[in-house]
Amino acid sequence: MTIETLTETRSHGGTQGVYSHASTETGTDMTFAAFVPDHEPGETLPVLWYLSGLTCTHANVMEKGEYRAACAKHGIAFIAPDTSPRGDDVPDAPDEYDFGKGAGFYVDAVCHPWSKHYRMRSYIESELPAVIAKEFPINMQRQSITGHSMGGHGALTIGLRNAGRYRSISAFSPIVAPSHVPWGQKAFARYLGDDRQVWREYDAIALIEDGARHDNILIDQGTSDNFLEEQLQTYRLSSACKETGIPAVIRMQDGYDHSYFFISTFMADHIEWHARKLHDKD
Amino acid sequence: MTIETLTETRSHGGTQGVYSHASTETGTDMTFAAFVPDHEPGETLPVLWYLSGLTCTHANVMEKGEYRAACAKHGIAFIAPDTSPRGDDVPDAPDEYDFGKGAGFYVDAVCHPWSKHYRMRSYIESELPAVIAKEFPINMQRQSITGHSMGGHGALTIGLRNAGRYRSISAFSPIVAPSHVPWGQKAFARYLGDDRQVWREYDAIALIEDGARHDNILIDQGTSDNFLEEQLQTYRLSSACKETGIPAVIRMQDGYDHSYFFISTFMADHIEWHARKLHDKD
Repeated sequence: MTIETLTETRSHGGTQGVYSHASTETGTDMTFAAFVPDHEPGETLPVLWYLSGLTCTHANVMEKGEYRAACAKHGIAFIAPDTSPRGDDVPDAPDEYDFGKGAGFYVDAVCHPWSKHYRMRSYIESELPAVIAKEFPINMQRQSITGHSMGGHGALTIGLRNAGRYRSISAFSPIVAPSHVPWGQKAFARYLGDDRQVWREYDAIALIEDGARHDNILIDQGTSDNFLEEQLQTYRLSSACKETGIPAVIRMQDGYDHSYFFISTFMADHIEWHARKLHDKD
Repeated sequence: MTIETLTETRSHGGTQGVYSHASTETGTDMTFAAFVPDHEPGETLPVLWYLSGLTCTHANVMEKGEYRAACAKHGIAFIAPDTSPRGDDVPDAPDEYDFGKGAGFYVDAVCHPWSKHYRMRSYIESELPAVIAKEFPINMQRQSITGHSMGGHGALTIGLRNAGRYRSISAFSPIVAPSHVPWGQKAFARYLGDDRQVWREYDAIALIEDGARHDNILIDQGTSDNFLEEQLQTYRLSSACKETGIPAVIRMQDGYDHSYFFISTFMADHIEWHARKLHDKD
Protein backbone atom coordinates (compact mmCIF):
# COMPACT_ATOMS: atom_id res chain seq x y z
CA MET A 1 0.00 0.00 0.00
CA THR A 2 1.85 3.05 -1.28
CA ILE A 3 0.58 6.35 -2.49
CA GLU A 4 1.88 8.53 -5.28
CA THR A 5 2.08 12.27 -4.81
CA LEU A 6 0.60 13.93 -7.89
CA THR A 7 0.93 17.52 -6.64
CA GLU A 8 1.69 19.30 -3.39
CA THR A 9 1.12 23.03 -3.23
CA ARG A 10 1.52 25.49 -0.40
CA SER A 11 -1.75 27.20 0.50
CA HIS A 12 -3.19 28.98 3.55
CA GLY A 13 -0.32 27.92 5.79
CA GLY A 14 -0.48 24.25 4.90
CA THR A 15 -0.02 21.77 2.10
CA GLN A 16 -2.75 21.03 -0.44
CA GLY A 17 -1.88 17.71 -2.01
CA VAL A 18 -3.39 15.43 -4.61
CA TYR A 19 -2.49 11.75 -4.31
CA SER A 20 -3.15 8.48 -6.10
CA HIS A 21 -3.05 4.89 -4.93
CA ALA A 22 -4.03 1.44 -6.17
CA SER A 23 -7.30 0.51 -4.50
CA THR A 24 -8.05 -3.14 -3.82
CA GLU A 25 -11.72 -2.34 -3.20
CA THR A 26 -12.38 -0.64 -6.53
CA GLY A 27 -9.69 -2.47 -8.50
CA THR A 28 -8.53 0.86 -9.90
CA ASP A 29 -6.19 3.69 -9.09
CA MET A 30 -8.03 6.18 -6.90
CA THR A 31 -7.20 9.87 -6.58
CA PHE A 32 -7.90 12.01 -3.53
CA ALA A 33 -7.09 15.49 -2.26
CA ALA A 34 -5.71 16.14 1.23
CA PHE A 35 -5.05 19.46 2.93
CA VAL A 36 -2.75 19.28 5.93
CA PRO A 37 -2.14 22.48 7.92
CA ASP A 38 1.36 23.13 9.19
CA HIS A 39 1.94 21.37 12.50
CA GLU A 40 4.65 20.45 14.95
CA PRO A 41 6.90 17.44 14.22
CA GLY A 42 5.20 14.35 15.59
CA GLU A 43 1.87 16.15 16.06
CA THR A 44 -1.25 14.49 14.67
CA LEU A 45 -4.31 16.41 13.52
CA PRO A 46 -8.04 15.72 13.58
CA VAL A 47 -9.55 15.03 10.17
CA LEU A 48 -12.68 16.18 8.37
CA TRP A 49 -13.79 13.98 5.48
CA TYR A 50 -15.60 15.67 2.60
CA LEU A 51 -17.64 13.55 0.18
CA SER A 52 -18.46 15.22 -3.14
CA GLY A 53 -21.61 15.21 -5.22
CA LEU A 54 -22.70 13.96 -8.64
CA THR A 55 -20.25 14.57 -11.51
CA CYS A 56 -17.51 15.73 -9.13
CA THR A 57 -13.98 14.52 -8.51
CA HIS A 58 -11.67 15.53 -5.63
CA ALA A 59 -10.98 18.73 -7.58
CA ASN A 60 -14.27 20.60 -7.30
CA VAL A 61 -14.14 21.22 -3.58
CA MET A 62 -10.37 21.65 -3.69
CA GLU A 63 -10.79 24.56 -6.10
CA LYS A 64 -14.11 26.06 -5.04
CA GLY A 65 -14.77 24.89 -1.49
CA GLU A 66 -12.95 27.65 0.46
CA TYR A 67 -12.08 25.27 3.29
CA ARG A 68 -8.35 25.82 3.71
CA ALA A 69 -8.39 29.04 5.75
CA ALA A 70 -10.76 27.54 8.32
CA CYS A 71 -8.93 24.20 8.43
CA ALA A 72 -5.61 25.98 8.98
CA LYS A 73 -7.15 28.16 11.68
CA HIS A 74 -8.53 25.17 13.54
CA GLY A 75 -5.69 22.73 12.84
CA ILE A 76 -7.83 20.20 10.97
CA ALA A 77 -6.85 18.06 7.98
CA PHE A 78 -9.37 17.84 5.12
CA ILE A 79 -9.65 14.77 2.89
CA ALA A 80 -11.67 14.82 -0.33
CA PRO A 81 -11.98 11.46 -2.14
CA ASP A 82 -13.28 10.89 -5.65
CA THR A 83 -16.94 9.95 -6.18
CA SER A 84 -16.48 6.70 -8.12
CA PRO A 85 -13.91 4.39 -9.64
CA ARG A 86 -12.33 5.68 -12.85
CA GLY A 87 -10.55 4.19 -15.82
CA ASP A 88 -11.18 2.57 -19.17
CA ASP A 89 -11.95 -0.80 -17.56
CA VAL A 90 -14.70 0.59 -15.35
CA PRO A 91 -18.24 0.19 -16.72
CA ASP A 92 -20.01 3.49 -17.17
CA ALA A 93 -23.19 5.11 -18.40
CA PRO A 94 -21.52 7.92 -20.31
CA ASP A 95 -24.72 9.72 -21.27
CA GLU A 96 -26.01 9.78 -17.69
CA TYR A 97 -24.58 12.34 -15.27
CA ASP A 98 -26.32 10.68 -12.35
CA PHE A 99 -25.13 7.09 -12.76
CA GLY A 100 -21.80 5.37 -13.32
CA LYS A 101 -18.56 7.33 -13.18
CA GLY A 102 -18.89 10.37 -10.96
CA ALA A 103 -21.97 8.85 -9.36
CA GLY A 104 -20.89 6.01 -7.07
CA PHE A 105 -23.51 6.91 -4.44
CA TYR A 106 -21.21 5.52 -1.70
CA VAL A 107 -22.58 2.00 -2.05
CA ASP A 108 -21.00 -1.42 -2.56
CA ALA A 109 -22.75 -2.48 -5.76
CA VAL A 110 -24.03 -6.05 -5.93
CA CYS A 111 -25.34 -6.16 -9.49
CA HIS A 112 -23.41 -6.97 -12.65
CA PRO A 113 -21.49 -5.20 -14.18
CA TRP A 114 -21.20 -2.61 -11.40
CA SER A 115 -20.25 -4.86 -8.50
CA LYS A 116 -16.64 -5.39 -9.53
CA HIS A 117 -15.47 -1.77 -9.28
CA TYR A 118 -18.25 0.26 -7.68
CA ARG A 119 -17.34 -0.34 -4.04
CA MET A 120 -17.26 3.22 -2.74
CA ARG A 121 -18.78 2.28 0.63
CA SER A 122 -15.93 -0.01 1.55
CA TYR A 123 -13.43 2.31 -0.06
CA ILE A 124 -14.52 5.29 2.05
CA GLU A 125 -15.34 3.37 5.22
CA SER A 126 -12.31 1.07 5.34
CA GLU A 127 -9.63 1.21 2.70
CA LEU A 128 -8.99 4.93 2.38
CA PRO A 129 -8.98 5.54 6.16
CA ALA A 130 -6.23 2.90 6.46
CA VAL A 131 -4.21 4.69 3.77
CA ILE A 132 -4.72 8.03 5.50
CA ALA A 133 -3.79 6.65 8.91
CA LYS A 134 -0.59 5.20 7.52
CA GLU A 135 0.54 8.04 5.27
CA PHE A 136 -0.62 11.25 6.95
CA PRO A 137 -0.18 12.85 10.40
CA ILE A 138 -3.79 12.20 11.41
CA ASN A 139 -5.28 11.33 14.79
CA MET A 140 -7.84 8.74 13.73
CA GLN A 141 -9.56 9.06 17.09
CA ARG A 142 -10.72 12.48 15.97
CA GLN A 143 -12.73 12.16 12.75
CA SER A 144 -15.75 14.00 11.43
CA ILE A 145 -17.50 13.82 8.07
CA THR A 146 -19.33 16.16 5.72
CA GLY A 147 -20.39 16.23 2.09
CA HIS A 148 -22.52 17.81 -0.61
CA SER A 149 -25.67 16.47 -2.28
CA MET A 150 -24.87 12.83 -3.16
CA GLY A 151 -21.87 13.31 -0.87
CA GLY A 152 -24.18 14.63 1.84
CA HIS A 153 -26.05 11.35 1.47
CA GLY A 154 -22.67 9.62 1.81
CA ALA A 155 -21.74 11.59 4.91
CA LEU A 156 -25.09 10.94 6.58
CA THR A 157 -25.22 7.21 5.83
CA ILE A 158 -21.57 6.49 6.56
CA GLY A 159 -21.76 8.64 9.67
CA LEU A 160 -24.94 7.02 10.92
CA ARG A 161 -23.65 3.51 10.29
CA ASN A 162 -20.41 4.34 12.13
CA ALA A 163 -21.66 6.76 14.73
CA GLY A 164 -18.87 5.97 17.17
CA ARG A 165 -16.18 6.80 14.67
CA TYR A 166 -17.33 10.24 13.61
CA ARG A 167 -17.73 12.89 16.27
CA SER A 168 -19.94 15.01 14.03
CA ILE A 169 -21.74 14.78 10.71
CA SER A 170 -22.66 17.71 8.53
CA ALA A 171 -23.96 18.11 5.01
CA PHE A 172 -24.67 20.73 2.39
CA SER A 173 -27.92 20.14 0.47
CA PRO A 174 -27.85 16.38 1.04
CA ILE A 175 -29.97 13.69 -0.57
CA VAL A 176 -31.57 12.52 2.67
CA ALA A 177 -33.89 9.78 1.40
CA PRO A 178 -32.50 8.24 -1.80
CA SER A 179 -35.05 5.43 -1.72
CA HIS A 180 -37.80 8.00 -2.20
CA VAL A 181 -36.35 10.22 -4.95
CA PRO A 182 -35.44 9.72 -8.62
CA TRP A 183 -31.65 10.03 -8.29
CA GLY A 184 -31.50 7.42 -5.58
CA GLN A 185 -34.13 5.08 -6.99
CA LYS A 186 -32.36 4.95 -10.34
CA ALA A 187 -28.91 4.37 -8.83
CA PHE A 188 -29.98 1.87 -6.18
CA ALA A 189 -32.04 -0.23 -8.60
CA ARG A 190 -29.02 -0.66 -10.88
CA TYR A 191 -26.26 -0.90 -8.25
CA LEU A 192 -28.21 -2.84 -5.61
CA GLY A 193 -31.10 -4.55 -7.39
CA ASP A 194 -34.79 -4.63 -6.62
CA ASP A 195 -34.70 -5.79 -2.99
CA ARG A 196 -35.48 -2.59 -1.14
CA GLN A 197 -34.42 -4.14 2.12
CA VAL A 198 -30.85 -3.89 0.82
CA TRP A 199 -31.36 -0.20 0.10
CA ARG A 200 -32.05 0.61 3.74
CA GLU A 201 -28.38 0.58 4.70
CA TYR A 202 -27.84 3.35 2.20
CA ASP A 203 -30.73 5.61 3.13
CA ALA A 204 -30.31 8.03 6.03
CA ILE A 205 -34.02 8.04 6.86
CA ALA A 206 -34.23 4.23 6.79
CA LEU A 207 -31.13 3.98 8.97
CA ILE A 208 -32.76 6.28 11.52
CA GLU A 209 -36.00 4.28 11.29
CA ASP A 210 -33.93 1.17 11.91
CA GLY A 211 -32.32 2.62 15.02
CA ALA A 212 -29.23 4.59 13.95
CA ARG A 213 -28.61 7.73 16.01
CA HIS A 214 -26.11 10.58 16.17
CA ASP A 215 -26.00 13.52 18.55
CA ASN A 216 -24.13 15.95 16.30
CA ILE A 217 -25.76 16.57 12.92
CA LEU A 218 -25.70 19.90 11.06
CA ILE A 219 -27.39 20.50 7.69
CA ASP A 220 -27.46 23.58 5.49
CA GLN A 221 -29.93 23.66 2.61
CA GLY A 222 -30.55 26.52 0.19
CA THR A 223 -34.15 27.51 -0.40
CA SER A 224 -33.47 28.31 -4.09
CA ASP A 225 -31.90 24.92 -4.76
CA ASN A 226 -33.50 23.57 -7.95
CA PHE A 227 -33.19 20.02 -6.62
CA LEU A 228 -34.79 20.66 -3.24
CA GLU A 229 -38.31 19.56 -3.99
CA GLU A 230 -37.73 16.54 -6.20
CA GLN A 231 -34.38 15.09 -5.13
CA LEU A 232 -33.44 16.38 -1.69
CA GLN A 233 -36.67 16.63 0.34
CA THR A 234 -34.96 17.92 3.44
CA TYR A 235 -38.24 17.82 5.33
CA ARG A 236 -37.97 14.04 5.53
CA LEU A 237 -34.82 14.35 7.64
CA SER A 238 -36.38 17.04 9.83
CA SER A 239 -39.35 14.74 10.48
CA ALA A 240 -37.24 11.65 11.15
CA CYS A 241 -35.02 13.54 13.60
CA LYS A 242 -38.00 15.06 15.39
CA GLU A 243 -39.74 11.72 15.71
CA THR A 244 -36.66 10.01 17.12
CA GLY A 245 -35.29 12.81 19.24
CA ILE A 246 -32.12 13.31 17.22
CA PRO A 247 -31.06 16.90 17.95
CA ALA A 248 -30.13 17.74 14.35
CA VAL A 249 -29.63 21.37 13.37
CA ILE A 250 -31.22 21.81 9.94
CA ARG A 251 -30.94 25.30 8.53
CA MET A 252 -32.78 26.54 5.44
CA GLN A 253 -30.62 29.27 3.87
CA ASP A 254 -32.69 31.87 2.08
CA GLY A 255 -31.95 32.36 -1.60
CA TYR A 256 -29.02 29.96 -1.87
CA ASP A 257 -28.79 27.35 -4.63
CA HIS A 258 -27.08 23.95 -5.02
CA SER A 259 -23.67 25.21 -6.18
CA TYR A 260 -20.28 25.81 -4.63
CA PHE A 261 -21.31 29.47 -4.32
CA PHE A 262 -23.60 28.11 -1.58
CA ILE A 263 -21.22 25.51 -0.14
CA SER A 264 -18.32 27.95 0.14
CA THR A 265 -20.55 30.43 1.97
CA PHE A 266 -21.14 28.06 4.87
CA MET A 267 -17.97 25.93 4.71
CA ALA A 268 -16.04 27.90 7.35
CA ASP A 269 -19.05 27.71 9.65
CA HIS A 270 -19.24 23.92 9.28
CA ILE A 271 -15.52 23.54 9.91
CA GLU A 272 -15.73 25.68 13.05
CA TRP A 273 -18.65 23.55 14.27
CA HIS A 274 -16.78 20.30 13.59
CA ALA A 275 -13.66 21.77 15.21
CA ARG A 276 -15.49 22.21 18.50
CA LYS A 277 -16.26 18.49 18.56
CA LEU A 278 -12.86 17.45 17.26
CA HIS A 279 -11.02 19.57 19.84
CA ASP A 280 -13.28 18.60 22.77
CA LYS A 281 -14.71 22.11 23.10
CA ASP A 282 -18.36 21.01 23.05
CA MET B 1 -25.18 50.84 -23.27
CA THR B 2 -27.03 47.93 -21.75
CA ILE B 3 -25.77 44.85 -20.03
CA GLU B 4 -27.13 41.35 -20.13
CA THR B 5 -27.28 39.29 -16.94
CA LEU B 6 -25.87 35.83 -17.67
CA THR B 7 -26.11 34.50 -14.11
CA GLU B 8 -26.77 35.87 -10.64
CA THR B 9 -26.14 33.59 -7.68
CA ARG B 10 -26.44 34.20 -3.97
CA SER B 11 -23.12 33.73 -2.17
CA HIS B 12 -21.57 34.91 1.09
CA GLY B 13 -24.36 37.35 1.81
CA GLY B 14 -24.28 39.02 -1.58
CA THR B 15 -24.85 38.47 -5.28
CA GLN B 16 -22.23 36.95 -7.55
CA GLY B 17 -23.16 37.91 -11.08
CA VAL B 18 -21.76 37.36 -14.54
CA TYR B 19 -22.69 39.95 -17.14
CA SER B 20 -22.12 40.67 -20.81
CA HIS B 21 -22.24 43.87 -22.80
CA ALA B 22 -21.34 45.11 -26.27
CA SER B 23 -18.03 46.96 -26.01
CA THR B 24 -17.34 49.83 -28.40
CA GLU B 25 -13.63 49.73 -27.47
CA THR B 26 -13.04 46.07 -28.35
CA GLY B 27 -15.81 45.79 -30.94
CA THR B 28 -16.95 42.58 -29.26
CA ASP B 29 -19.22 41.42 -26.51
CA MET B 30 -17.30 41.47 -23.23
CA THR B 31 -18.07 39.36 -20.17
CA PHE B 32 -17.26 40.30 -16.59
CA ALA B 33 -18.00 39.07 -13.07
CA ALA B 34 -19.28 41.33 -10.30
CA PHE B 35 -19.85 40.50 -6.64
CA VAL B 36 -22.06 42.96 -4.80
CA PRO B 37 -22.58 42.45 -1.06
CA ASP B 38 -26.02 43.04 0.36
CA HIS B 39 -26.53 46.72 1.14
CA GLU B 40 -29.19 49.21 2.08
CA PRO B 41 -31.48 50.61 -0.64
CA GLY B 42 -29.78 53.63 -2.16
CA GLU B 43 -26.43 52.80 -0.57
CA THR B 44 -23.38 52.75 -2.81
CA LEU B 45 -20.33 50.60 -2.17
CA PRO B 46 -16.60 51.04 -2.77
CA VAL B 47 -15.20 48.85 -5.52
CA LEU B 48 -12.10 46.69 -5.88
CA TRP B 49 -11.09 45.88 -9.46
CA TYR B 50 -9.35 42.55 -10.06
CA LEU B 51 -7.41 42.03 -13.29
CA SER B 52 -6.65 38.42 -14.19
CA GLY B 53 -3.56 36.79 -15.61
CA LEU B 54 -2.60 34.96 -18.78
CA THR B 55 -5.12 32.40 -20.10
CA CYS B 56 -7.79 33.51 -17.60
CA THR B 57 -11.30 34.82 -18.03
CA HIS B 58 -13.51 36.41 -15.35
CA ALA B 59 -14.22 32.86 -14.12
CA ASN B 60 -10.89 31.83 -12.61
CA VAL B 61 -10.92 34.30 -9.74
CA MET B 62 -14.69 33.97 -9.37
CA GLU B 63 -14.29 30.23 -8.71
CA LYS B 64 -10.92 30.06 -6.95
CA GLY B 65 -10.18 33.52 -5.59
CA GLU B 66 -11.91 33.26 -2.18
CA TYR B 67 -12.73 36.97 -2.16
CA ARG B 68 -16.45 36.97 -1.36
CA ALA B 69 -16.31 36.48 2.41
CA ALA B 70 -13.89 39.39 2.84
CA CYS B 71 -15.76 41.64 0.41
CA ALA B 72 -19.03 40.97 2.21
CA LYS B 73 -17.40 41.60 5.60
CA HIS B 74 -16.00 44.94 4.46
CA GLY B 75 -18.88 46.00 2.19
CA ILE B 76 -16.84 46.17 -1.00
CA ALA B 77 -17.92 45.25 -4.54
CA PHE B 78 -15.48 43.18 -6.61
CA ILE B 79 -15.30 43.44 -10.40
CA ALA B 80 -13.36 40.91 -12.48
CA PRO B 81 -13.15 41.68 -16.22
CA ASP B 82 -11.97 39.35 -18.95
CA THR B 83 -8.33 39.49 -20.12
CA SER B 84 -8.88 40.09 -23.83
CA PRO B 85 -11.53 40.46 -26.51
CA ARG B 86 -13.17 37.17 -27.54
CA GLY B 87 -15.05 35.87 -30.54
CA ASP B 88 -14.52 34.36 -33.96
CA ASP B 89 -13.76 37.74 -35.52
CA VAL B 90 -10.93 38.50 -33.11
CA PRO B 91 -7.43 37.67 -34.39
CA ASP B 92 -5.64 35.17 -32.20
CA ALA B 93 -2.47 33.14 -31.84
CA PRO B 94 -4.16 29.88 -30.88
CA ASP B 95 -0.94 27.97 -30.21
CA GLU B 96 0.44 30.65 -27.88
CA TYR B 97 -0.91 30.88 -24.33
CA ASP B 98 0.89 34.18 -23.79
CA PHE B 99 -0.35 36.18 -26.77
CA GLY B 100 -3.72 36.91 -28.35
CA LYS B 101 -6.93 35.80 -26.68
CA GLY B 102 -6.52 35.54 -22.92
CA ALA B 103 -3.40 37.70 -23.13
CA GLY B 104 -4.46 41.29 -23.81
CA PHE B 105 -1.76 42.71 -21.51
CA TYR B 106 -4.00 45.70 -20.75
CA VAL B 107 -2.67 47.69 -23.72
CA ASP B 108 -4.32 49.51 -26.62
CA ALA B 109 -2.66 47.72 -29.53
CA VAL B 110 -1.42 49.87 -32.42
CA CYS B 111 -0.22 47.17 -34.83
CA HIS B 112 -2.26 45.30 -37.43
CA PRO B 113 -4.19 43.02 -37.00
CA TRP B 114 -4.39 43.50 -33.22
CA SER B 115 -5.28 47.18 -33.07
CA LYS B 116 -8.92 46.77 -34.05
CA HIS B 117 -10.03 44.65 -31.05
CA TYR B 118 -7.17 44.54 -28.53
CA ARG B 119 -8.00 47.73 -26.64
CA MET B 120 -7.99 46.44 -23.06
CA ARG B 121 -6.39 49.60 -21.66
CA SER B 122 -9.25 51.82 -22.77
CA TYR B 123 -11.77 49.13 -21.94
CA ILE B 124 -10.58 48.82 -18.34
CA GLU B 125 -9.71 52.47 -17.79
CA SER B 126 -12.75 54.08 -19.41
CA GLU B 127 -15.50 51.99 -20.93
CA LEU B 128 -16.11 49.36 -18.25
CA PRO B 129 -16.00 51.88 -15.35
CA ALA B 130 -18.77 53.84 -17.12
CA VAL B 131 -20.84 50.65 -17.42
CA ILE B 132 -20.25 49.81 -13.76
CA ALA B 133 -21.09 53.35 -12.60
CA LYS B 134 -24.35 53.24 -14.53
CA GLU B 135 -25.52 49.72 -13.76
CA PHE B 136 -24.26 48.93 -10.24
CA PRO B 137 -24.59 50.55 -6.79
CA ILE B 138 -20.96 51.69 -6.73
CA ASN B 139 -19.38 54.82 -5.28
CA MET B 140 -16.88 55.63 -8.02
CA GLN B 141 -15.08 58.00 -5.66
CA ARG B 142 -13.89 54.91 -3.80
CA GLN B 143 -11.98 52.62 -6.15
CA SER B 144 -8.96 50.40 -5.66
CA ILE B 145 -7.32 47.93 -8.02
CA THR B 146 -5.51 44.59 -7.79
CA GLY B 147 -4.56 41.74 -10.08
CA HIS B 148 -2.49 38.64 -10.67
CA SER B 149 0.58 38.18 -12.86
CA MET B 150 -0.29 39.86 -16.20
CA GLY B 151 -3.21 41.35 -14.25
CA GLY B 152 -0.80 42.53 -11.58
CA HIS B 153 1.01 44.35 -14.39
CA GLY B 154 -2.38 45.74 -15.41
CA ALA B 155 -3.21 46.87 -11.87
CA LEU B 156 0.18 48.54 -11.39
CA THR B 157 0.25 50.34 -14.73
CA ILE B 158 -3.40 51.42 -14.72
CA GLY B 159 -3.09 52.40 -11.07
CA LEU B 160 0.12 54.39 -11.59
CA ARG B 161 -1.25 56.16 -14.67
CA ASN B 162 -4.43 57.08 -12.77
CA ALA B 163 -3.07 57.50 -9.27
CA GLY B 164 -5.80 59.93 -8.24
CA ARG B 165 -8.55 57.52 -9.14
CA TYR B 166 -7.39 54.44 -7.20
CA ARG B 167 -6.89 54.79 -3.48
CA SER B 168 -4.71 51.69 -3.34
CA ILE B 169 -2.99 49.29 -5.71
CA SER B 170 -2.08 45.71 -4.88
CA ALA B 171 -0.89 42.73 -6.86
CA PHE B 172 -0.23 39.03 -6.58
CA SER B 173 2.96 37.90 -8.34
CA PRO B 174 2.85 40.77 -10.87
CA ILE B 175 4.89 41.23 -14.02
CA VAL B 176 6.57 44.45 -12.88
CA ALA B 177 8.82 45.19 -15.85
CA PRO B 178 7.32 43.74 -19.04
CA SER B 179 9.84 45.58 -21.23
CA HIS B 180 12.61 43.52 -19.64
CA VAL B 181 11.10 40.01 -19.64
CA PRO B 182 10.11 37.54 -22.38
CA TRP B 183 6.31 37.64 -21.81
CA GLY B 184 6.22 41.41 -22.09
CA GLN B 185 8.77 41.78 -24.86
CA LYS B 186 6.90 39.33 -27.05
CA ALA B 187 3.50 40.89 -26.44
CA PHE B 188 4.59 44.52 -26.67
CA ALA B 189 6.56 43.97 -29.90
CA ARG B 190 3.49 42.56 -31.60
CA TYR B 191 0.79 44.75 -30.02
CA LEU B 192 2.79 47.98 -29.87
CA GLY B 193 5.64 47.70 -32.39
CA ASP B 194 9.34 48.28 -32.06
CA ASP B 195 9.34 51.82 -30.62
CA ARG B 196 10.20 51.16 -27.01
CA GLN B 197 9.20 54.67 -26.06
CA VAL B 198 5.58 53.56 -26.62
CA TRP B 199 6.13 50.62 -24.27
CA ARG B 200 6.95 52.89 -21.33
CA GLU B 201 3.29 53.71 -20.65
CA TYR B 202 2.72 50.00 -20.10
CA ASP B 203 5.66 49.23 -17.85
CA ALA B 204 5.36 49.92 -14.12
CA ILE B 205 9.08 50.50 -13.67
CA ALA B 206 9.24 52.87 -16.64
CA LEU B 207 6.20 54.74 -15.35
CA ILE B 208 7.93 55.21 -12.00
CA GLU B 209 11.13 56.29 -13.76
CA ASP B 210 9.05 58.79 -15.70
CA GLY B 211 7.54 60.25 -12.54
CA ALA B 212 4.46 58.21 -11.64
CA ARG B 213 3.93 57.78 -7.90
CA HIS B 214 1.46 56.09 -5.54
CA ASP B 215 1.46 56.03 -1.76
CA ASN B 216 -0.44 52.76 -1.28
CA ILE B 217 1.10 49.76 -3.02
CA LEU B 218 1.03 46.20 -1.65
CA ILE B 219 2.65 43.21 -3.43
CA ASP B 220 2.69 39.54 -2.48
CA GLN B 221 5.07 37.26 -4.35
CA GLY B 222 5.67 33.55 -3.72
CA THR B 223 9.29 32.41 -3.43
CA SER B 224 8.50 29.08 -5.15
CA ASP B 225 6.87 30.76 -8.15
CA ASN B 226 8.36 29.16 -11.28
CA PHE B 227 8.03 32.47 -13.14
CA LEU B 228 9.74 34.63 -10.53
CA GLU B 229 13.24 34.71 -11.93
CA GLU B 230 12.57 34.98 -15.65
CA GLN B 231 9.21 36.76 -15.99
CA LEU B 232 8.37 38.59 -12.77
CA GLN B 233 11.64 39.94 -11.35
CA THR B 234 10.04 41.52 -8.32
CA TYR B 235 13.40 42.99 -7.27
CA ARG B 236 13.06 45.57 -10.04
CA LEU B 237 9.98 47.03 -8.37
CA SER B 238 11.65 46.97 -4.95
CA SER B 239 14.58 48.89 -6.38
CA ALA B 240 12.47 51.42 -8.25
CA CYS B 241 10.35 52.11 -5.17
CA LYS B 242 13.40 52.48 -2.92
CA GLU B 243 15.09 54.85 -5.35
CA THR B 244 12.04 57.07 -5.68
CA GLY B 245 10.78 56.92 -2.12
CA ILE B 246 7.54 55.07 -2.95
CA PRO B 247 6.52 53.34 0.30
CA ALA B 248 5.52 50.04 -1.34
CA VAL B 249 5.05 46.97 0.84
CA ILE B 250 6.55 44.05 -1.08
CA ARG B 251 6.28 40.71 0.70
CA MET B 252 8.06 37.53 -0.38
CA GLN B 253 5.89 34.61 0.76
CA ASP B 254 7.93 31.53 1.55
CA GLY B 255 7.10 28.39 -0.43
CA TYR B 256 4.11 29.78 -2.35
CA ASP B 257 3.78 29.35 -6.12
CA HIS B 258 2.01 31.26 -8.92
CA SER B 259 -1.41 29.60 -8.62
CA TYR B 260 -4.75 30.44 -7.06
CA PHE B 261 -3.67 28.33 -4.08
CA PHE B 262 -1.32 31.27 -3.44
CA ILE B 263 -3.69 34.07 -4.43
CA SER B 264 -6.55 32.76 -2.31
CA THR B 265 -4.23 32.54 0.71
CA PHE B 266 -3.61 36.28 0.74
CA MET B 267 -6.79 37.56 -0.91
CA ALA B 268 -8.61 38.35 2.34
CA ASP B 269 -5.55 40.19 3.60
CA HIS B 270 -5.42 42.35 0.45
CA ILE B 271 -9.13 43.10 0.67
CA GLU B 272 -8.81 44.14 4.30
CA TRP B 273 -5.88 46.41 3.38
CA HIS B 274 -7.82 47.99 0.50
CA ALA B 275 -10.87 48.33 2.76
CA ARG B 276 -8.94 50.54 5.16
CA LYS B 277 -8.21 52.95 2.32
CA LEU B 278 -11.67 52.69 0.79
CA HIS B 279 -13.41 53.31 4.11
CA ASP B 280 -11.08 56.16 5.20
CA LYS B 281 -9.60 54.15 8.06
CA ASP B 282 -5.95 54.81 7.08
